[in-house]
Amino acid sequence: MTHPAAPIDHQVRDLGLAEAGRHQIRLAEHEMPGLMALRRRHAAERPLQGARITGSLHMTVQTAVLIETLVALGAQVRWSSCNIFSTQDEAAAAVVVGPDGTPDDPCGVPVFAWKGETVDEYWRLLGRAFDWSGEAARAGADWIGPNLILDDGADATAFLHLGARAEQVPEDAGRPERPGVEEQALWAEIDRILADRPGWFTGAAAGIIGTSEETTTGVHRLAHLDRIGRLRWPVIDVNDSVTKSKFDNRYGIRHSLPDGLDRGTDVLIGGKVAFVCGYGDVGKGAAEALRGQGARVIVSEIDPICALQAAMDGFQVARLEDVAGEVDILITATGDRDVVTVPVLLALKDHAIVGNIGHFDNEIDMAALEALPGAERVRIKPQVDEWRLPNGRSVLVLSEGRLLNLGNATGHPSFVMSTSFTNQVLAQMELFAAPDRHAVGVHRLPKTLDELVARLHLDALGVRLTELTSAQADYLDVPVEGPYKPEHYRY
Amino acid sequence: MTHPAAPIDHQVRDLGLAEAGRHQIRLAEHEMPGLMALRRRHAAERPLQGARITGSLHMTVQTAVLIETLVALGAQVRWSSCNIFSTQDEAAAAVVVGPDGTPDDPCGVPVFAWKGETVDEYWRLLGRAFDWSGEAARAGADWIGPNLILDDGADATAFLHLGARAEQVPEDAGRPERPGVEEQALWAEIDRILADRPGWFTGAAAGIIGTSEETTTGVHRLAHLDRIGRLRWPVIDVNDSVTKSKFDNRYGIRHSLPDGLDRGTDVLIGGKVAFVCGYGDVGKGAAEALRGQGARVIVSEIDPICALQAAMDGFQVARLEDVAGEVDILITATGDRDVVTVPVLLALKDHAIVGNIGHFDNEIDMAALEALPGAERVRIKPQVDEWRLPNGRSVLVLSEGRLLNLGNATGHPSFVMSTSFTNQVLAQMELFAAPDRHAVGVHRLPKTLDELVARLHLDALGVRLTELTSAQADYLDVPVEGPYKPEHYRY
Amino acid sequence: MTHPAAPIDHQVRDLGLAEAGRHQIRLAEHEMPGLMALRRRHAAERPLQGARITGSLHMTVQTAVLIETLVALGAQVRWSSCNIFSTQDEAAAAVVVGPDGTPDDPCGVPVFAWKGETVDEYWRLLGRAFDWSGEAARAGADWIGPNLILDDGADATAFLHLGARAEQVPEDAGRPERPGVEEQALWAEIDRILADRPGWFTGAAAGIIGTSEETTTGVHRLAHLDRIGRLRWPVIDVNDSVTKSKFDNRYGIRHSLPDGLDRGTDVLIGGKVAFVCGYGDVGKGAAEALRGQGARVIVSEIDPICALQAAMDGFQVARLEDVAGEVDILITATGDRDVVTVPVLLALKDHAIVGNIGHFDNEIDMAALEALPGAERVRIKPQVDEWRLPNGRSVLVLSEGRLLNLGNATGHPSFVMSTSFTNQVLAQMELFAAPDRHAVGVHRLPKTLDELVARLHLDALGVRLTELTSAQADYLDVPVEGPYKPEHYRY
Amino acid sequence: MTHPAAPIDHQVRDLGLAEAGRHQIRLAEHEMPGLMALRRRHAAERPLQGARITGSLHMTVQTAVLIETLVALGAQVRWSSCNIFSTQDEAAAAVVVGPDGTPDDPCGVPVFAWKGETVDEYWRLLGRAFDWSGEAARAGADWIGPNLILDDGADATAFLHLGARAEQVPEDAGRPERPGVEEQALWAEIDRILADRPGWFTGAAAGIIGTSEETTTGVHRLAHLDRIGRLRWPVIDVNDSVTKSKFDNRYGIRHSLPDGLDRGTDVLIGGKVAFVCGYGDVGKGAAEALRGQGARVIVSEIDPICALQAAMDGFQVARLEDVAGEVDILITATGDRDVVTVPVLLALKDHAIVGNIGHFDNEIDMAALEALPGAERVRIKPQVDEWRLPNGRSVLVLSEGRLLNLGNATGHPSFVMSTSFTNQVLAQMELFAAPDRHAVGVHRLPKTLDELVARLHLDALGVRLTELTSAQADYLDVPVEGPYKPEHYRY
Repeated sequence: MTHPAAPIDHQVRDLGLAEAGRHQIRLAEHEMPGLMALRRRHAAERPLQGARITGSLHMTVQTAVLIETLVALGAQVRWSSCNIFSTQDEAAAAVVVGPDGTPDDPCGVPVFAWKGETVDEYWRLLGRAFDWSGEAARAGADWIGPNLILDDGADATAFLHLGARAEQVPEDAGRPERPGVEEQALWAEIDRILADRPGWFTGAAAGIIGTSEETTTGVHRLAHLDRIGRLRWPVIDVNDSVTKSKFDNRYGIRHSLPDGLDRGTDVLIGGKVAFVCGYGDVGKGAAEALRGQGARVIVSEIDPICALQAAMDGFQVARLEDVAGEVDILITATGDRDVVTVPVLLALKDHAIVGNIGHFDNEIDMAALEALPGAERVRIKPQVDEWRLPNGRSVLVLSEGRLLNLGNATGHPSFVMSTSFTNQVLAQMELFAAPDRHAVGVHRLPKTLDELVARLHLDALGVRLTELTSAQADYLDVPVEGPYKPEHYRY
Repeated sequence: MTHPAAPIDHQVRDLGLAEAGRHQIRLAEHEMPGLMALRRRHAAERPLQGARITGSLHMTVQTAVLIETLVALGAQVRWSSCNIFSTQDEAAAAVVVGPDGTPDDPCGVPVFAWKGETVDEYWRLLGRAFDWSGEAARAGADWIGPNLILDDGADATAFLHLGARAEQVPEDAGRPERPGVEEQALWAEIDRILADRPGWFTGAAAGIIGTSEETTTGVHRLAHLDRIGRLRWPVIDVNDSVTKSKFDNRYGIRHSLPDGLDRGTDVLIGGKVAFVCGYGDVGKGAAEALRGQGARVIVSEIDPICALQAAMDGFQVARLEDVAGEVDILITATGDRDVVTVPVLLALKDHAIVGNIGHFDNEIDMAALEALPGAERVRIKPQVDEWRLPNGRSVLVLSEGRLLNLGNATGHPSFVMSTSFTNQVLAQMELFAAPDRHAVGVHRLPKTLDELVARLHLDALGVRLTELTSAQADYLDVPVEGPYKPEHYRY
Repeated sequence: MTHPAAPIDHQVRDLGLAEAGRHQIRLAEHEMPGLMALRRRHAAERPLQGARITGSLHMTVQTAVLIETLVALGAQVRWSSCNIFSTQDEAAAAVVVGPDGTPDDPCGVPVFAWKGETVDEYWRLLGRAFDWSGEAARAGADWIGPNLILDDGADATAFLHLGARAEQVPEDAGRPERPGVEEQALWAEIDRILADRPGWFTGAAAGIIGTSEETTTGVHRLAHLDRIGRLRWPVIDVNDSVTKSKFDNRYGIRHSLPDGLDRGTDVLIGGKVAFVCGYGDVGKGAAEALRGQGARVIVSEIDPICALQAAMDGFQVARLEDVAGEVDILITATGDRDVVTVPVLLALKDHAIVGNIGHFDNEIDMAALEALPGAERVRIKPQVDEWRLPNGRSVLVLSEGRLLNLGNATGHPSFVMSTSFTNQVLAQMELFAAPDRHAVGVHRLPKTLDELVARLHLDALGVRLTELTSAQADYLDVPVEGPYKPEHYRY
Repeated sequence: MTHPAAPIDHQVRDLGLAEAGRHQIRLAEHEMPGLMALRRRHAAERPLQGARITGSLHMTVQTAVLIETLVALGAQVRWSSCNIFSTQDEAAAAVVVGPDGTPDDPCGVPVFAWKGETVDEYWRLLGRAFDWSGEAARAGADWIGPNLILDDGADATAFLHLGARAEQVPEDAGRPERPGVEEQALWAEIDRILADRPGWFTGAAAGIIGTSEETTTGVHRLAHLDRIGRLRWPVIDVNDSVTKSKFDNRYGIRHSLPDGLDRGTDVLIGGKVAFVCGYGDVGKGAAEALRGQGARVIVSEIDPICALQAAMDGFQVARLEDVAGEVDILITATGDRDVVTVPVLLALKDHAIVGNIGHFDNEIDMAALEALPGAERVRIKPQVDEWRLPNGRSVLVLSEGRLLNLGNATGHPSFVMSTSFTNQVLAQMELFAAPDRHAVGVHRLPKTLDELVARLHLDALGVRLTELTSAQADYLDVPVEGPYKPEHYRY
């Protein structure tokens, strides 16, 4: 059983791109000590030998180091991006070529992604990442499918679930009656496969040992699947490792938010009024970064605990609609929809900058803006649009309402992705090492692995850890070597 | 059955003290909106009618507002402090007199505490807080004991457990072979009661519905009791409410650490090298406060995750022994023992300031310092000692190694104690409302109550909360009115 | 010619006070490396031998180290405070006793100051600091007066000028027609001397070599005297040494503002809205301190440059009257009058805290508050008054509107005063070494001395200075050993 | 007399570039309220009518707004860049085309600059900016030269001085015996003109009314010329306006340093050890930015006052050579030479990032690095080189040791350049309005103009200034409308 060969191919033969990407990957390796340590620790045993991983995650330089780490541990990998704008083409090209390949003789990993995909292309490329027919052919096998999914936002995992359900219970497949643009493209790809290769989804789904999921949003979707009884395999929630949620979400955003604003707009942040919607980990990182650049930051929250934290951290906590007229820079960090509506956009200061670092582009109601009579879009440069509003003012919208740190800059920096991706690799190893250990459901990594991830990143920063004496460990009732905290500890 | 009347009495008839205390209580009420809201909400129903609470918690102005809130909700209360230095005498006096009493006709709550108790006095005063014989006499009852304990550090709860065990299994009562000063005093008080009133401990213990515990250390002790199967009643762990651990521990310390340093020493913090042992919530608050005053802060950690957080927050992470010679201000925030040893004290800069905001005075090895040949203590003023060391240098030790924010200043400010104490009152109400709901063990408050505590403190800070639309709530899969986060969420 | 012996004496014979003060002085010496270095450098030559200094400056522990440094360099000194609340009685007592004296045989410096003087007492005590008749008697001289003034706020210098003018041109002496309370007391003291010792003022003024002045306000007054042609001797403006204005004013306030708020009110600063009037050096330190404690800080300014700085530093810049209803903590740092008026006090949040760290008590219009019908003052504790307002709200006024860091806490910490006072001592040495070098007028210290002050404070903080190579110095066109910057450089 | 037509032309006919530049200029105008206000205020009177300005300043989008403001006020302008890497080609193209021109019919300003000039090209392009022969031809004049210079780093002013001296006193022209690369190129251009057009330099120099100079370094060079008696015309030192040195140097760097690091390297700043050489205004901005991103910042200083400031601001102050082995990111901000030497480069951590935001590329001894045996340069991308060192480590050098914020990012953001450039325009107006008012020498703008610059930037940030009452102004002895501070005030 093979996946239909898609007519869309990836960039392979661009010598300049691949070489530039290889330089950057080499530099990034220096900044990803966790992944490099895993390569060193497990070089001999190759614990992922036999693993076939379909990955769906922003195809950046850092992801290149992740992919090549998975390969170094023995896995076979196929990859697509989870975002139409976030691919760094030179990273994709370099991964395809491979560290030892050449553009004419690539020996790397098939990557199906480029910067600036259409929505249609996006789903077709995900389809290709699931199509292991070439590997089957090379192995002389009838059919080979992936046995692990490495996911970001859960699109890949959901795709298999939707397709399998459509094969098995077509009358209750969740096919929307009035699909939006995104859903149309998704179902077009599902339908293509259903038509070309009946049974493919069911077979592929049956072969999956588990998924490791990167984000809050993805975990949320998969937990929902589990709650309604439809989840088909175990999921490891990488997002909720402390070394992911408290690092990537917070410190990554602290870096990549101003980076995206700077590259997108070149506008001074200092002295401006910045409004951050949401004071979770992402919002905390955003607020800290903006304050660190001299902005006056106002925060909104729905959760009284986070709201109280924001106040205690010295931020004004207000409703967006009450202060919109003072706002120069508006950032969404909620993971919810319709957080910035057209009335808010109309109320902002002239030339206000509007960007999203939460998750989907519906945090800012882009659809309503596009439908607003009299609104006109002027492209300033890629991923930067001036929207001229009917009231005579304009706003600058970054990355069409999608993640601005990925669209306008290069995403989170390597070091912080190293903590996240070391969790990912450990999760893949955990799933693959003992396929039966985990029940169907959403699990977190054990605290020992979480602490291991941190530990692998300390030397690079010159951190010297204090060691407990055994008397001190006894007094605290913890092992000398950890773990040190109860499960509910909040860091 | 009555507890032996102790010869130690509390301050009642000091008019000036009580009046000064009443002024401060009135001002503190303005800063404790959570407690005042509970008084307003439950004034009519008096949900603690019938509760008899023995409290053991720093007898400060804020605690006065807590005590009077418990009384307003219907409870009878007896109180002692959990620390020999932390009592504010004017607060104690005012509580004894009561809001409507006079020094000659006190109608408040019996409080057994003063600033600067000896260790012997400490345990005898705790004994008096457990002695409800006066109340029994007034009620014409044979015997009345407490039915609830409100604890800080678990001394009160442990005291009943130890005594009851000593009555019931004297051969395995945990009586230490070579007791320290503290243990001698504790067992002296137990033995006094065992001798005077056989059976008192067993009876008192049988009457307890539950304990609410304030601190990390106390929870740790009680969880240990539970693990070894000796815990006798349910405990509500107030410490691990988000609105306690992430507020009191962090923002409270951020305020009261520099306050204690300033009142104790008047030494400029700016420009100094400050070393903070431990980067948990308390350490985070300490480091933020010291940096906010312009110190260069170095942190030590045993936990790689917290260590990585410290590094990402811009702090040097080192071992104390490696940098002691640069340190001007040394603060312990670990909850562990022997964190500052004599060799470290000898290695510090001349005139370094040494203080503890963790928990017990063994974080700094005071016993070894006192035993050090050639070391000499010069009292600068109460709670500030210059220790002249045999190497010719000296260190300034605050509060004899006990909690400096309580010993040298007035503890956490009212507002932050309001979040903690609102949790305490809710925990007491939760225990008393349904004595059978909770199994023996250590429990946390449900997230709805945690969010309620936060909610009751927003108006006072001018925070305006954003409200979810039902579409947004559906999208996030949470109720519009909360709770908003999964249990494992870390804030 | 002698000054009339005033009946007011200072505290001498309080053994406990003097001993406590001596301990604190000893500790402060450790924190005042600049002064101690001057003692070491000039111990042999005693450059102030023959100097007779009348000082008028807050009589704190730090001032004690200053006074004893002047004495160590050879000077004779008499002292009073420049503020009715700022004296630390134990410091005064210790200085009077002297390092080697005893309460029964004091051999220190006459100090005329105590905490909580009346306004009448204030001016009489200043009179006593000018009265060198005892020294004259001991020296067997007819008359001895001071030859140097060390001033803070210029009261001492102005006092001699006013008195001398009143003797010489009584019809144009500047005697106010409707004197306020302050002016009545000042002129009462002048008149007493005019009556008892005709000619005393003229004689004393003639003997003065110069004044060194500590503050912005004092320099301002003296520059005005100079501009109208009445200044009688050279003044060295210590305030405008970089190591004074940029250190004491900024870093001193950063420390002592929260210290004063904490000791005065015990109110949590975090989460509150704090308003700082003025964003000069003092205001910058205030805003930084409050932000460092988690307050949200709003600033007002009249100067567009400072206003723009505040905005670029991330602060909201608003008019007080526009936001008074949100303000929890209101601090004046302007040096101007009527900055906080009664309408503002009435508009503040209930229980708002109001304090002044600028200079005189007219920054907050206390006179109008006292005259407000229906306003009632409730003394909470010394230097903390709750003013109940006719609109049913109340405000907490610190130190009766005078400098709260001195009234509610202990003023600036030693280290920062060491930079200021090292400038003072260098200024006194500069004036005394070459009485004719300086024309009548207001001068600043040369940059080499300013850099010297800084240099004397580096070792204590572990700072290691980089040294220019001569090639580098040539390239920059500066001497290897400094000074390094042009006069107009702003640091 | 005409300047020889250089064979080097500027980009004119690139439609896409010019259009992209025009969009960016339009957005920048919104961020440059000071310049736009000057256009509005002086649109009618055209105070620069008759001015012919040769400008030498980074040819960025912001400079485009500056140039078009000068034109709007009536000036004729010719322009080159003062840095080989800092030109933004689209800005240059748009200025050449002009707001109303087309690529085929440009009607803008001749700009001679592109990103990535060689050193030879650099000086020839400066020559072209001085060559007004086209304008002469169009005007039917024999000869036209500039009458004003707008300079950054003083290259343009020095060029005319050197050339004129070479014409007039060839035997003492300062021609170096062993010229470096830079000097060879400079003298090649001078010699070309000397050969082609004898007397041109003398004539051109005679026509200059004055120079306005942008930078510390440039002012330093011109003050040196003045000191040795060779300066030929008045200079207005724009750099030392408060609204320049305290804004551009500090807040501009705070923005553009992390921007340059991010675009150049994508490396996480958080958690890293960053070393900043120099704690002047530029160093202060750099240190604040790096701390705001979570780096641990160490500072070096030669000036004890700045060193003490750094310590009081919480930074470690050390010598670079003592801590080089811990440093991840090394930034020079001194304006001096040889601050980073080869031994330091060899001592840094592997893969350390090295960049300059001071001024010339000799702050980092690039010449010595290039000459180091065994060192190898690997170009990662334009303006980012990995230098592999003979010790097996490597360092990443940004912008070949030149200003990284200009080479790797787009320089300072518009708003902060608006404060600088408003000073520039005011300086040009001041020189042109009264050619004889200023003596030969280096002058600063009067404080009223400095305050005006600030005032013109407040509305855009929502700042509301407080106004003095006349009673308050009298009390302070300042005019109600300012200026408010004495000349020596340091802000």
